[in-house]
Amino acid sequence: MMIVEEKTISSDRVYTGKVISLRVDTVEVLNQGYKKREIVEHGGAVGIVAITDNNKILLVKQFRKAIEKEIVEIPAGKLEIGENPKDCAIRELQEETGYTAQNIKLMHKFFTSAGFSNQKVFIYLATGLTKGENNLDDGENLDLYELDLNDAYDMVVRNDIEDAKTSIGILLAKELV
Amino acid sequence: MMIVEEKTISSDRVYTGKVISLRVDTVEVLNQGYKKREIVEHGGAVGIVAITDNNKILLVKQFRKAIEKEIVEIPAGKLEIGENPKDCAIRELQEETGYTAQNIKLMHKFFTSAGFSNQKVFIYLATGLTKGENNLDDGENLDLYELDLNDAYDMVVRNDIEDAKTSIGILLAKELV
Repeated sequence: MMIVEEKTISSDRVYTGKVISLRVDTVEVLNQGYKKREIVEHGGAVGIVAITDNNKILLVKQFRKAIEKEIVEIPAGKLEIGENPKDCAIRELQEETGYTAQNIKLMHKFFTSAGFSNQKVFIYLATGLTKGENNLDDGENLDLYELDLNDAYDMVVRNDIEDAKTSIGILLAKELV
Repeated sequence: MMIVEEKTISSDRVYTGKVISLRVDTVEVLNQGYKKREIVEHGGAVGIVAITDNNKILLVKQFRKAIEKEIVEIPAGKLEIGENPKDCAIRELQEETGYTAQNIKLMHKFFTSAGFSNQKVFIYLATGLTKGENNLDDGENLDLYELDLNDAYDMVVRNDIEDAKTSIGILLAKELV
């Protein structure tokens, strides 16, 4: 079967925000007429799988308003406008954890919700870590801790991890590290 | 460090849509004053890791307007209002692939983007498959194919898979199946 692209007939900007923006496109689908597509625009983000020399992974626990609860995640953050994902990973690792990494390389990139958003997340693997002082963004509060990578993997398998980038990062780290 | 919850001071509804809605909350963060939180509300979704008796996984390839390209995914779909995720998985598997499953169980649930959305995805493992006729939703076009589970795993490791639920589902299937 041929894949059917969707031609944009019109595009309405609903909201322009700080983290996300929203538009609603009217598209033409072959033999099916016009459909609406609600699209959440996001500038992209990084997550960092940071592994210490004794095989521990850095995790952060923080309250997320969107889900009204605390959640365990790998260190992460949004790309600034024009920022290279690797530079963003280096910056966010330092800001959230205080660590700098001797080696940092792309592990995986993915779309979080291709059905309604263009948000793309780049996961970096950071090794050769040196501890310094962290430097949180305004409005950011988080708990930093270290966990043996095997224990983190077990947490994913038990579903005690519930964050997409964190599950992917830990599952792949077990394969690659 | 104490985790700081964010008290809602006010909540503005920006958009109410078919797939997503958007609100902007003003929250009070301890010692940091008022902040805005842009929150995309979504009713939840399922993805299905469907494995045939000869260890092949069912995958679909479809055009996604939000990312303006085709992407390979596990079969998936949105929860209807009040629908149980397991019932949704059974329904979406049948609609998108034509298959029914003798066994269907929850593998993993996760938040796609806890920073700005409450979207939760439930991944089900479906086995004991029997082929029937598929029945796509209006406005849905997709290519269905089968791939050896080991080959799908290699695709994730090479990052030829770029969809969150699909990467998580395949990586966990390799562990569990």
